[in-house]
This record gives sequence, structure tokens and C-alpha cells, in this order.
Amino acid sequence: MSDDTLSTNPFIDADGDHLHEECGVFGIFSHTDAAALSTLGLHALQHRGQEAAGIVTFDGSQFHSERHMGLVGDNFTKKAVLDRLAGSCAIGHTRYSTTGASALRNVQPLYADFAGGGFAMAHNGNLTNAMTLQRQLQQRGSIFQSTSDSETILHLIATSDGKNLVDKLIDALRQVEGAYALVALSEKKLIGARDPLGVRPLLLGDLHGSYVLASETCALDIIGARFVRDIEPGEMVVISKDGLQSLRPFEQRNHPRFCIFEYVYFARPDSAVNGVNVYGVRKRIGEELAREAPADADLVVPVPDSGTPAAIGFAQAANLPFELGIIRNHYVGRTFIQPTDSIRHMGVKLKHNANREMLDGKRVVLVDDSIVRGTTSLKIVQMVREAGAREVHMRIASPPTTNSCFYGVDTPEKAKLLASRMSIEEMAAYIKVDSLAFLTIDGLYRAVGEAKRNNEIPQFCDACFTGEYPTALTDHEKPNDVVKATRLAEAG
Amino acid sequence: MSDDTLSTNPFIDADGDHLHEECGVFGIFSHTDAAALSTLGLHALQHRGQEAAGIVTFDGSQFHSERHMGLVGDNFTKKAVLDRLAGSCAIGHTRYSTTGASALRNVQPLYADFAGGGFAMAHNGNLTNAMTLQRQLQQRGSIFQSTSDSETILHLIATSDGKNLVDKLIDALRQVEGAYALVALSEKKLIGARDPLGVRPLLLGDLHGSYVLASETCALDIIGARFVRDIEPGEMVVISKDGLQSLRPFEQRNHPRFCIFEYVYFARPDSAVNGVNVYGVRKRIGEELAREAPADADLVVPVPDSGTPAAIGFAQAANLPFELGIIRNHYVGRTFIQPTDSIRHMGVKLKHNANREMLDGKRVVLVDDSIVRGTTSLKIVQMVREAGAREVHMRIASPPTTNSCFYGVDTPEKAKLLASRMSIEEMAAYIKVDSLAFLTIDGLYRAVGEAKRNNEIPQFCDACFTGEYPTALTDHEKPNDVVKATRLAEAG
Amino acid sequence: MSDDTLSTNPFIDADGDHLHEECGVFGIFSHTDAAALSTLGLHALQHRGQEAAGIVTFDGSQFHSERHMGLVGDNFTKKAVLDRLAGSCAIGHTRYSTTGASALRNVQPLYADFAGGGFAMAHNGNLTNAMTLQRQLQQRGSIFQSTSDSETILHLIATSDGKNLVDKLIDALRQVEGAYALVALSEKKLIGARDPLGVRPLLLGDLHGSYVLASETCALDIIGARFVRDIEPGEMVVISKDGLQSLRPFEQRNHPRFCIFEYVYFARPDSAVNGVNVYGVRKRIGEELAREAPADADLVVPVPDSGTPAAIGFAQAANLPFELGIIRNHYVGRTFIQPTDSIRHMGVKLKHNANREMLDGKRVVLVDDSIVRGTTSLKIVQMVREAGAREVHMRIASPPTTNSCFYGVDTPEKAKLLASRMSIEEMAAYIKVDSLAFLTIDGLYRAVGEAKRNNEIPQFCDACFTGEYPTALTDHEKPNDVVKATRLAEAG
Amino acid sequence: MSDDTLSTNPFIDADGDHLHEECGVFGIFSHTDAAALSTLGLHALQHRGQEAAGIVTFDGSQFHSERHMGLVGDNFTKKAVLDRLAGSCAIGHTRYSTTGASALRNVQPLYADFAGGGFAMAHNGNLTNAMTLQRQLQQRGSIFQSTSDSETILHLIATSDGKNLVDKLIDALRQVEGAYALVALSEKKLIGARDPLGVRPLLLGDLHGSYVLASETCALDIIGARFVRDIEPGEMVVISKDGLQSLRPFEQRNHPRFCIFEYVYFARPDSAVNGVNVYGVRKRIGEELAREAPADADLVVPVPDSGTPAAIGFAQAANLPFELGIIRNHYVGRTFIQPTDSIRHMGVKLKHNANREMLDGKRVVLVDDSIVRGTTSLKIVQMVREAGAREVHMRIASPPTTNSCFYGVDTPEKAKLLASRMSIEEMAAYIKVDSLAFLTIDGLYRAVGEAKRNNEIPQFCDACFTGEYPTALTDHEKPNDVVKATRLAEAG
Repeated sequence: MSDDTLSTNPFIDADGDHLHEECGVFGIFSHTDAAALSTLGLHALQHRGQEAAGIVTFDGSQFHSERHMGLVGDNFTKKAVLDRLAGSCAIGHTRYSTTGASALRNVQPLYADFAGGGFAMAHNGNLTNAMTLQRQLQQRGSIFQSTSDSETILHLIATSDGKNLVDKLIDALRQVEGAYALVALSEKKLIGARDPLGVRPLLLGDLHGSYVLASETCALDIIGARFVRDIEPGEMVVISKDGLQSLRPFEQRNHPRFCIFEYVYFARPDSAVNGVNVYGVRKRIGEELAREAPADADLVVPVPDSGTPAAIGFAQAANLPFELGIIRNHYVGRTFIQPTDSIRHMGVKLKHNANREMLDGKRVVLVDDSIVRGTTSLKIVQMVREAGAREVHMRIASPPTTNSCFYGVDTPEKAKLLASRMSIEEMAAYIKVDSLAFLTIDGLYRAVGEAKRNNEIPQFCDACFTGEYPTALTDHEKPNDVVKATRLAEAG
Repeated sequence: MSDDTLSTNPFIDADGDHLHEECGVFGIFSHTDAAALSTLGLHALQHRGQEAAGIVTFDGSQFHSERHMGLVGDNFTKKAVLDRLAGSCAIGHTRYSTTGASALRNVQPLYADFAGGGFAMAHNGNLTNAMTLQRQLQQRGSIFQSTSDSETILHLIATSDGKNLVDKLIDALRQVEGAYALVALSEKKLIGARDPLGVRPLLLGDLHGSYVLASETCALDIIGARFVRDIEPGEMVVISKDGLQSLRPFEQRNHPRFCIFEYVYFARPDSAVNGVNVYGVRKRIGEELAREAPADADLVVPVPDSGTPAAIGFAQAANLPFELGIIRNHYVGRTFIQPTDSIRHMGVKLKHNANREMLDGKRVVLVDDSIVRGTTSLKIVQMVREAGAREVHMRIASPPTTNSCFYGVDTPEKAKLLASRMSIEEMAAYIKVDSLAFLTIDGLYRAVGEAKRNNEIPQFCDACFTGEYPTALTDHEKPNDVVKATRLAEAG
Repeated sequence: MSDDTLSTNPFIDADGDHLHEECGVFGIFSHTDAAALSTLGLHALQHRGQEAAGIVTFDGSQFHSERHMGLVGDNFTKKAVLDRLAGSCAIGHTRYSTTGASALRNVQPLYADFAGGGFAMAHNGNLTNAMTLQRQLQQRGSIFQSTSDSETILHLIATSDGKNLVDKLIDALRQVEGAYALVALSEKKLIGARDPLGVRPLLLGDLHGSYVLASETCALDIIGARFVRDIEPGEMVVISKDGLQSLRPFEQRNHPRFCIFEYVYFARPDSAVNGVNVYGVRKRIGEELAREAPADADLVVPVPDSGTPAAIGFAQAANLPFELGIIRNHYVGRTFIQPTDSIRHMGVKLKHNANREMLDGKRVVLVDDSIVRGTTSLKIVQMVREAGAREVHMRIASPPTTNSCFYGVDTPEKAKLLASRMSIEEMAAYIKVDSLAFLTIDGLYRAVGEAKRNNEIPQFCDACFTGEYPTALTDHEKPNDVVKATRLAEAG
Repeated sequence: MSDDTLSTNPFIDADGDHLHEECGVFGIFSHTDAAALSTLGLHALQHRGQEAAGIVTFDGSQFHSERHMGLVGDNFTKKAVLDRLAGSCAIGHTRYSTTGASALRNVQPLYADFAGGGFAMAHNGNLTNAMTLQRQLQQRGSIFQSTSDSETILHLIATSDGKNLVDKLIDALRQVEGAYALVALSEKKLIGARDPLGVRPLLLGDLHGSYVLASETCALDIIGARFVRDIEPGEMVVISKDGLQSLRPFEQRNHPRFCIFEYVYFARPDSAVNGVNVYGVRKRIGEELAREAPADADLVVPVPDSGTPAAIGFAQAANLPFELGIIRNHYVGRTFIQPTDSIRHMGVKLKHNANREMLDGKRVVLVDDSIVRGTTSLKIVQMVREAGAREVHMRIASPPTTNSCFYGVDTPEKAKLLASRMSIEEMAAYIKVDSLAFLTIDGLYRAVGEAKRNNEIPQFCDACFTGEYPTALTDHEKPNDVVKATRLAEAG
């Protein structure tokens, strides 16, 4: 057993062995409750980033910013905070960030005073040439304050010759590569934009006449807003008191490549993203999986909560009972324990416990959404076996994750991905299951409504499964040439 | 619609319209990791009380105490905290308490310096003659520091003529009435005791030779301890370096009356309490409910998470699809928002959202564990209808809750209980469902393994459903005669 | 040089090598601003205890308590705190306490719910038989919550047969020995009491018809209250809506023995205590010292701030210039630095710096109030010499401190007192001065207005200088027989 | 009486009616204890700014920054903080800033990642064309993060064509006008620079071979460093492993104009600034004042602590007794009280109390350093009279303060300065003294060692007394043309 497994801290790794979405964004134009509605919208998007959140409002003469480490519900619901966030226009952001002392200055929305006025921006996604651009901007005299790739966009705006803020933003976006769904707020406008491939989601809603922008429909549902449509790949919407203007700043050379992993794990099951209900996709994934990789078993058990919809689909398709054979403890704290040797081995039970009565003597189909490093699977399987399961058949609701994401998802480097260094048989032996099967890439495409993957022009970004990256990866191709983002370590 | 409904604050009432267990207890004797294991045990018992927690250890010469408002994982996992909790014997407590400034002095374990030595105690349950006893003790010269009924036991010990601590504790317990499962720690002994009726759970485990006491088996599972047996009603176990001694301090006049609501809602589904697996009971409840009150419907949807096991049982028995038609947001914060008028109406969506695609046009069986004040049911039903459900058939996994609990559960006064002032038909109209059914009391007894309720000598405490209280309720019968517990309001 | 000297931490020992008064007390009856006025009064008494403070009010039906570690001005000036302290009667307390995690439960005022009603009490002084009484009370069934000797009085009240609270308090005070100036608040009465010797100060003031009790006149000045008179030794005043009643609970066998060190160091120079202005005494001390121990010098320099009034008196009597040759930094923090080796040697300069221009080449008379362990004197002299002083003549504004105080002053044990283990000549050599002189005991008595010390019946308590303790020291005479105050260590 | 007087909050305005220095700076090159020594140095400079402090270190590969609101001793003495500040080179800053939520991003040292490497800078003083330059830089594409004028220097460096950091800094400094004493740290160099007039102090010290830069000598004394010399007006010193290089980037067209108010109030009395001991100047001020404006009185009383040295000088010159007739409470908190009406009138007594016994029936000379708005003087005089003083003769240790400072001192606008709107007679009547006299401007120049003020080419900057500003005031001459520094309000 690897040392990595043993050292897993029992009170950390709250979400276990999963990829992490880096952001959710929200914006609202011209509503008297802009800050409170943004709080609610960000709360609904909390699953896209639990480490920090921020809201910026504009009150007609001044911008107001609140950015805090921690959950939306813990930081943005006090009357004093909402009172400080005056104004009828707002944008907000939830963030999954690496822990560390200096994190606050990286929390979004970012803000800049341009010669032409104040400007705030929140970004979901990741730029793949940010460091290269940053080096050029520094040569020219720009001073970067954060280590966020998003700040690069601000400096590109500041140094643009465009004749107004919208032109400058278009100028900036034409220079960046990578994935972005962004919301921005100037003194007159709320702006939403998606990269030409539309990798990250962004959609338009309507709340009694006020425009809303959000990453997922669940952020509309919570405030009772009506879903209007997705912002299209390569589209920029500019919302002002004169209404909504749709711009197409990019030549239409690209086919859309929405992130297929949003359906597998990131998005909330009650959301529709890119027009398709997530829970439905996940159930169909389970059904596909039951067809592709049936198992002779007594019951189907999800690894909660991420495997639950696929397990329901699997159970229904396989006509097997769906049972809560593993119970999840939702009170897992976020802080650190210095584990003693004897405690270090307890790992996964902090979050999951086997429901022995359902498992004892049974042949179990275990359904999980994905395998990243394999550490959680290893422990879950061991726990299920110790609870008496006679056979364990692991079914994974996605193809093997073999490649890192560079578009706003926190993935381990490729070498840490179990599927990049082991065959399925080796993985089955490693996690000690009787059988292991992953959904095929075509099965996944079927679940999202396609006949199959179009290998010439794939309908989605599936680089984490296929290694086919839809954009250049400039920073990663010549890393030695790139300056460090900052030489400063700051606490507090 | 009542004003009470409208004023519900969107960011509060995190667990909604449920009864709240007031405590979980844990103890361990002679283990080098006593404090860390207690932290893990209390973490597993977090669902029995999320407001505060405490641990007391004894290191051979001194007791160490840490008590904090908030979750176990947020307060007891730091190395500094665990280091301060030196010693190989420990007891711990999680608490659901009313919010308020002075709460910390009520957080358990309580501690007292007796003439014979130090003594710490943690108590799950509630005494029904505590105020009467307190008045007598104050007349005699005792000074109470907390407003907890549990402190009464300490003063009864302090003023007892018993010849040693165990005798004094027995003397004290013979004077109290009500419900208690308690763990206590003296300089030499770890003690566990249950009231003569065994209303609250307490069980014995073994961790590689070290005795463990805990409220539920999930607290044994998390540390890998083996379940040995339940502490029996009226039993006191005294654990010392000489082993475990079982005492029977009470005349055996009572039949056991374990709290049946532990199975309905309080206990974790993966726990066995009083020897029976909770998830199994809940599934059987769903099966009974499907037989007693079938519905002509398209799918079965749980109100997550409390209605989930019963919904699975109902769906299997009724041969209907089980679907996640309502999605729960687990990031609900604990703090306060000053809602604007427009936000005040959003209430329940903070925690739950309808999964429209599954509900639209469907006839839905909604399964919840109980109805307390009815406020949550009202909103859930409205939400499900707004998502397009054609019919809503509510099925409740317990009989109508018509009476308050005086044994350690936080219940509204009787007049606030919806079932105490409305018939089932009136309730159905109030929450606006097409049909409403509760499990019968005999159905509930069948689900826990009995043939039916023995109305002469009921096998369980079911006072919340029947009003038959198994003990005297001294304090509540002559309240005017009872002193206020304290005249002091203290912050900080 | 002793290791003790070297390890002195530069950012700690904020008040250096001084004895510490343990408390100031304040009370006010029937004023609409009771809490705010108590805050101001305690702020004026902050020099008597900087570690913690507390206020208890009574609003006609309930007591309210706020107790905080830290300064009055940092904790009791917020509107929310004052709003919580509702009511027109209040008592308050400032405390010098040992640092440590569990300190908060020792912060006063203490509070108890007696059978006869609520009761709060704040105590300046120290009981010399508290532990002996505590042992007896514990045998009888009392449970102590704090480690404060003051709690003993509460338990004596609780267990008294007295027919009302005042009688019970008198009963309690007749059993204790030692020093106390205390203020207490019941539901009907504000009570002030001094021990039969009147060791600690307590005085009565009047604010537009509302009675005020305070340790020093400076607490009257700050609120504009008029000084009425000292509470007399052995007197108890009981203030109610019917006015002030003066009781004499003790047989008048004792002569008063007010603490003479209040004049030397504890009290504020602008206060009058026991009827005499403190600044005036200190100046006369300096004049006496100039007569008793003149020095052939160029200037007189105080060790600021405690030596300043005596230095002014010395300079005027000796007709030498008074100069600020040492400058004190008032921003000394309270927290801890882990000093590196090179920093460990900087010690005293954090708080004091030599004013080189005034000292270089000069013969300097240095005036300080007392020498306790000698560590500060050693460093001050070294600093003054390094600044170029040609001669250093140290003059101490009190006799040698040779004995510990047991009446509410935090003194090192006798063996740590420099004067208890060295002659004056040895001390002069140790601190490296050209000459060293202490005020004589008769000189001190002259400065406070007596002709000389009456060695038969000393007019003051001067035990720290003479070892003649005016009361029994029961706890200290048979320490092995005394229980530990508590076996509990609690953080938070 | 003006409303302004009445509303003065008793627990705020800790330093009362004084001008506030805005900064102290410190730097050290190549010492193993760089961070700890900076902490000590900043602690000694705490009087120059009590609201916030910061330290930046460089460890050979990375910069480390800690910036905190509050006192140095409360924030920079913990081992964890010092451990994070790794490296042998450091600069630090103490700041007097306006309170407000977004203050932290204005706390210095500022830091920037330039194309050529990291760079940190701390600035004492104020630029008078910062906003004008900021507007130009924003037009060019620079993004400002703080509202500090100091950040302008960073952007001028970033956009300079200079061939290395030193050249770029010189280029930047040649563009700014106003006052600055700054310390900066690059990866290779510690840099100190004073503006061409040398308005703010900066001096060079030596600690066993390591160069030190500091605002005052007291910061050298505390660490045992030797004073080497003042950095000269218009000089830049560049310290590297190759030693110290002195540069003269400016044409020498200006005569030095050191701030004469440093002697009156800002600097610590034990410091020497610009080569002259401050305490000595203040005593001579008192002597000059006694000659210029004698008073027939019984005693001389300082307004503590700022008036003390001048009062000693006055008393010695006038041959009157120097007495502490007013006692200062050093525990004044920094937080806010919502004053009740009755408390609102207590104002100044929080900080000062009259020592009645010394004042009653006496003719008193009161000595203070300056009168700003007059509010404190008004209350002090009233307090002294209420304590029984028969006559009050106020003597002010500086000329009337008639003009605002634009060089780094927080002054009220001119209209709020009492001396700008009243004659001396009117002021005497306003503060209700029997006589009032200010030191003459020539008297002040004599006290600092000059024969008299050279009205052609004044030897000092005395603009606050004379209105003769030694530099252009670009921003203040065309304010309408200047952009707001930021449109963002940020909390936390």
C-alpha cells in the first residue's frame, strides 16, 4: 500500500478523491436586492467552489466589494455585509482555491480603476497563455497584484487602445486562449462572455424583468428567475439600461466544445447546463453502464453522494435493488488533525461508513462517478468488504481519467492519475475489486444525447478522457520561459 | 397562509421542521489516543447535536477540559487542542442547544471537584424532576452554575452520604426521574449508566482491549471498535483497571421503553441502536406505509435526506421508480440574513430544489419522516407542484406527532404541533396535497420487529405519538412552584 | 548574571519588576447609565488590574453579566455590550490575573443563584483561610467552579442559616480571614464591605443622588461623582431604595491597618485613598529620601512612570534639576516573542530608553518606587551607564521589600525578593550602582502623615517591609492539609 | 459651545487634539535576525503610526510580507509570524491611517513584481502630485490597487525606461514632488532615499557591520545599533553585499527644509533627528517660552505627555515648581462607545484627570505643545479650573498652527485650525484662560539652534506655522482635474 494512502489525513480532503471545479459566477442587473440575490445565487453555486466567495456591487457612484474565505452562507448573509453592498447591479463568484495564507488577494471578483472608470470581473475557467501574456505586460510596466490568471485580462483591458470598455474587453479576450465564462460589471453595464469553444457554462435568466447571468440553472431556481437561454460559445452579452446587446467578437471558426465532465460530476443534478438536465444524464450514464458492463449481483450501492444518480439508473436498468449501503457523514470539518499513528489508518471512515446490515454476505455493485488517484476507491472497497460484502463490482460512471485539465479544473498532474499509469485490470487489482468497468467514451456521449463521439470534430471537450485539448496550451508548452507569477508570500 | 410561514428566514432553520435530539455521548478507558478517538467518536455522533461539543480527559493527576460551540471537526482536530487533552481516559458530548450568548457554560461534559476527587459527566436525555430537586438543593446551600438539568446530578452526588463516588452516583440517580444515558469519568473509573426504562441509547464497545461507551454503533465503526452489547436499561457499568463491573442500582419494576423515534429520525441509518439496524427499520417503515397507504403514482420521491430510506422501501414495495425529485444543498449556512421582502418568500429553496425534469407532469409520492409544525411540508409541496407535478401524495414514515417530548428531545410545545390541532384531512388541506397518510402506530411497531404495540405494557416510549409518558413529569405538573433555573444572562 | 535575567522576554513583563495589585472594584445604585458609568469607573481603575474585567447589572427582574479578558476600553465600550448590561444597578471588577487558559471562569464579578435570589460579588483582596474553608465546604457538598478564593464567600452565604442575604453575608464574612474590599449586588441592594483591618481601600461617592462605591477617588472623578467618605474598616454599607444603612458586623477589637504600599505604588497619583492624596505622599517620600539619603549629583532622573512623583520631590528637596533621562515607550505589547539568542539580551529597552544627551557625563540620582527581584533595576542601571552616566545613585521610594503579601497583591515568593536574600550593600553591588539607599520605615510613615511607625500597634499594614502580618495565615501555615483548589485545566 | 465639542466620544480620539505623523520606516541589510530586529525597530517607532504596521523580508529567493492593522507588539512578536518572515534583509513601516474597512490594502510596505524582479517599498511623507501622476499612468494602462500616493512610485518604476532598478527608481523620484523618506528592498539591494528638501527624517545606523535605516535614533537604540549619520536631503543610499553607495540623483538647487514640527511633537524625546536631540529642543522651547511669555504663577503643570519636556524647561527657567497637576491614563482603549447623553459630556477625563490637591487655590502655568482645533485645550482648562485652580496661564510650545500640512502629516483642513480663524485673544477667550501665549517663530528657531528664522531661505519647513510651502502643491492647485483615487469601497 502506498505511503500516499496511509498519510491521508482523516479530517481533510473533505471532498475526497475528486476533481474540483474552480468557480461559479453570477450577475444581476438593475434589481433592488442585487446583493442579496447574488448571495442566494452564489449559495446555489457553492458546489462549484467552497473555499472563498466575493460580490461586487455598483450603486451609481461607487463600487462596493466583499470577499471572504469560506462559505457564502457563513459570510454574506449578515445584514451589515449586505448593507455595505449597496447598489442595484452586482456580480459574484465562488472559488475553489488552494489553501494558503495569501489566498484572499486572489479571491474574485477582481476590480480595477481604469482611466475610463471602475471595472469588476469574475471568471470561471482557466487561460492557457496567461503567464506568457503576464510576462509581456510586466515588460511593458504592468504591476500584477494577484497570482490569478484572471488578472491578466484586466491588464489587457487597461493597456488596450479600444475606444471604450467593451471594445477594450473584446481586444483583451481576443488575445487570451483557454476557457472562460466571465461576468463583468462596469459603471453602466453588466457583461457576460464565453470563450469561443464554450467550455464553461454560462446562461441567461430573467427575474421579473431584471437580467441574470449564472453558471447553472440552480442559481436561477433559488431566486425564482426564469431560464432564458445559454450564452452561446463565443458570445458576449452587454446588458445596460437600454437592454441586452449580443456581440460576436470572434470569427466563427470553432465548433463548440462544452466540458462533458460538467455532466459527470461538476454540475448540480437539478441543474440544466448547455440545455440538458444533469440528473437525467447521470441516470442514463447508469443505464448505459448497466448495459455495457452488467454484473451478477444482489444490489446496487452508490458511493454517496456523487455516484447516486448513476446508481439509480444502473439499478433500474439492471432490475436490481438500489440500497444505501454506504452512509455519508455531512459534518466533515475543514480543519486539520495531526494524526497519531493509530488514527492515520482510519481515513475514509470520517466521511463514509458501511451500512453493514445491507452489505453482509451480499454481491455488491458499487457505483462511483470517477477514479482520480484511486485512494478513496481503495478505502471504500476495503470498508465494504470488512462489512461482509461477498463480491464487489465497481462500476465507474465515466471513462478512465487519463489526462489533466487546463481549463479551470483542479486536477492532479497526469502521473498521479491512476488511469494514466495502470490498465483497467491493474486498477481492479489495486483497488481490490472482483470486477471493474468504466463507461466507454461513446456510452458517455450517448448519455448526453449524441449517437456517439464524432472523432473528427468532437462535440464536447473530453480532454481529461482523451487527451485531445481543443486549444493551444502555450504556457505549458514552454514553461521555462515563463516568469513566476509572483515572488511574494504574504499571510493575512 | 400563516405569518409564521412567511417570516421563515432563508438562511436559518438549517434542519428545518424536525425534532432535535439533544445529545450524543462517548467514553473510552485506557487508550493512548483517548482524546483523538473521542473526537472521531463525537464526529460520528454529530447528527445528535451540532451546536457544541466537549471532551474531558484525565491524565493520572489532572483533568483536562475543552468545550466549544460549533462542530467537532472545526474545534477538536487541531494538534494544540488534542495535546491539551492529555490522558488515556476520556468522555465527550455533542449537544444540540438553543442558541444564545451564555450557552458555553451549559456545554458538557460538566465537571466538579468533589471532596473525594474530580468528576466529569456527560448526559443524553432529560430529567423531569430536575427543577424540583434544584430548588431543594439550593435551599440546602448548593450553588448552580449552569442552567442544565444535568448539573443537578452533580449536586446530588456532592451532597450524598454514599461512601464512595459510585455509591454517591447511585444515590443521586435513585433520586432523579426522566431519561438519561450518561458517561462519567472519575480519577479511577469510567462509568456508563442508563435510566431504568432505557429511553436513550448507550452501548459498549471494545477497541483492542480498551472499553468504549457510545450512543450509537456508528461511533464504534469510525474508530474500528467492536460492538459488544447495549448497556441495559437500569444498568450501570463501572470500568476500571480491574475490568468492567455491571451494577443494577434500581429495583427491576419497569419494563424497558426505548425511544421509538430514534428509529424514525434521530439515529444514523448505519447505526444499530438497541440491537436493531436503523436503515432496515426505515426501509420496513416504507414497506409498511406502501401496504397501509398505497398511491396510484408514477414515482416515489424522498424529502432528502430524512425520508430517503423509507422512500426506497416504499418504492420497492410498491414497485414504483425511486427518483431524486428534490435535491438538497448541503452547504446551508448557520448565520442570519436580514431578508428583504422579496427574499422572504424564497424560504425552503435554500436547502431544497425541485428537479423539474423528474417531476413535470408526474404523479408523485412524497415521503418524509414526520410532520412537526408543517411549515416545511407546505413549502416542499408548493415547490414540487411549481415544478409541474400533476399529483402529490404525501406519505409520512411515522404516526402523527401529537405530543411534546420531555426526555431530551427539543419539541415545540404541543399547541405548535400540527397534528395536535388538525385532523389528517385538515393537514392534507393545509399542506395542499392530493392525499396524505401517516404510518399507523402498529405499523411502526411491526417495522421495528414487534407483532404490534402492546397497549398494556408498550414495548417502546412512543409518548410523542400517544401521549403515554412512562415516567412522572414532576417539574411540569407543578411549574409555578419551581424556581427559575437562573436569573443570570451572560454573554461570552 | 543569573539566567533569570537573561531569559527575560523582551515583549512580555509589560509592567516589569513590580508587585501587582489584583483588583479594583466599582458599584453604582439606581442610575440610568449604570453599565456605562461602571465602564468608565473601571477604566479609571484599570491600573489595579489589566488582565480582565467584568460588570454585572440587575434590571429589576434579571441579572446581566459580561466578563472579558483584556482592557475595559477594548471590551466594554461597544453599544451591544452596554445594551446587554441592562438595569440601573451595577457592580464591576478589574483583575490582574495569572495568564492561562482557564482564566475566564475566575473573572469577577462572581454570580450565584441562591434560594433567596440572585447575588453578584466583586472582591479586591485575598482571604488567608479560603482553602481551609473550601475543604470544609466540599466535605459538606459544595461544588466550586472557580479557583478564586472569592467563591468561598458565595458558598458560605449559600450554606448560612442567616435569615436574609445581608445576615448570610455577615455570617460568611465572620468566618473568613484576610483582606477584602468587596461590592455586591442583590435584587434589592448594593452592598459594600471592608475587612475589619481595612487593608484594601473602598470609598463612597455620590453622583447626583446615586450612591457609588469605588476603590479609589479617580473612579469618582471620571464620572463627576462627589467623594463622600471612606467605607470604614469593618463597616458594611447596605444601599437600597430606602437609602444607605451602615452596619458594623465585627467586634471592634482591631486597629485599622490600611495597606501602606497603596501609597508607594498601587494607587493612582491623582487618587486619595484612606483620605490622603497619593501624589502628595509620593512627593513627600521623595523629600524624605533626599533628606535621609542625599547624593552629590548633577540631576535627578525617575524610572518612569512609577518613580516620577518621588523624583520630583527628591529634586525639589535636594535643589537638583529634575530631568527625563529615561523615556518610556507606552506601546509595549502584551504578546509573546520567541526571542532569538541575539535579541534575548535587549530586554528592558523595549519599555525604556536612555535619553543620552541628558545623561552623558553626568552624576545621576535614579529614583524608583521599589525593588522586587532586581531584574529591572539591573538593566536600567546598565542602560544609564551605557548612555554615559558618570555616577549612578539609586534611591528607592520605600523600605526594602523583604516579605510576600497574602492580602491580594501578586508577590514573588520570599526567596525571589532581592531584599530578602541580600543586604543593601550586596544589592548595590548586584545592580552595579555607586550608591543605593531605601527609604526608612519611619520615613515612609512620616510621608503618609504619621510621626513615626507605632511598633506596638502599627498604623498600617506594612508586612511586605516588616513581615508583621496583621491576620492569621491559616492556609499558609498548614499547606499540606489543604486540598488543591481544582484538578481541572480548561481552555477556552 | 460648538456641537463638535459636545459630541466628542469619550473612548475615541485616543491622542486627542494633535497632528499625527503618518509613518515610521526601518530597514536592515544582511542580519540573521532581520525580521525580529525590524519588529523591535518598528516598536520603537510606534509613536509615528499606531494604526497598522508591515514588514517585508527577502530570503534569497522569495519575498515575505506581513501587514497587520494594530500595534507592532500585538502582531509581529509571535514566533509563527517571525518564522514566516524569513531572510536576512527586511524593511518595515508603521502607519497612522484613517480608520475604515479597506485599510489593509493601503498598509505598507507595498510590493510589486517587476519584470526585473520583486521590489518592496515603505514611505514616510506625502507626494503633492501623486494624483496627477496617477491619472497619467492610468491613461497609459497602469492599474492601481491601493489609494496610497506611495503606489504611484511603483508604477513610475514599472514604466520607466531605466536600465536597472536603481535607475528606474531615480527616474521615478525625479517625477514626484513632495516629501518622502523611503526605504526599499530589491532582491539584491536595500535602498534609502530622502526628497531633495529632506522634509522627513531618515538616518543610517550600524549593527555590528549590518547597515540599518530608520526614521529616528530611538529605533537604533532599541537594537543596540550605532548611529552613523543622517541620510542627506536628496541623497539615495544603495546598500548591497558590496557595501554602501551614495548617490545624488537631484540637481542641488534646494536648501534643506527639515520639518520643524518633528521637534515640537512628532519625534520621540530620546531621539536625535537631523542631528539634534529632541528632548533638548523641547526643554529649550520651554525656556524660550518662559522668557518670551512669563507668568506670575505658583507652579508649572504639563499637559501630559506631550507638554512635559517644555514644562520642565519653563519651570527651570522661571524658577517655579514643576508639578504633575494632570494625570494621564495610559489605558485608553481604541474602540467605540455609543455615548448616552449624560456620558457625552465627560470627554477628556477618560485620558486626563486633574490632581486636585496640587491645583486647588493655585495660579497654574499649563504647558502644551500645540493647539489644533482647541477642543482638548478647552476641556483641560475646564477640568483644571474645576479642580480649584485660581488662575490658568496657558503656554504653547510652538507658534500658532495656522496651515495644513501636505507632507505626510494628518492635519485638519485649514478652516478647522483654531489659530486660522481666531486671534490669540479670541483663542484665550474661547478656551477660557487668564492668559495665553504661543512661542514665536524665532523663538522656535532659537530652540533648534538657529539665531533666528532666515526669512529669505528658511532653514526648516515651517509651513504649518507660516504657510510657506517649500514645494509645488500640484494636486491641490487643480483638484477638479484629478481623478478619484479609487471608486472601490472594500471591507475586510
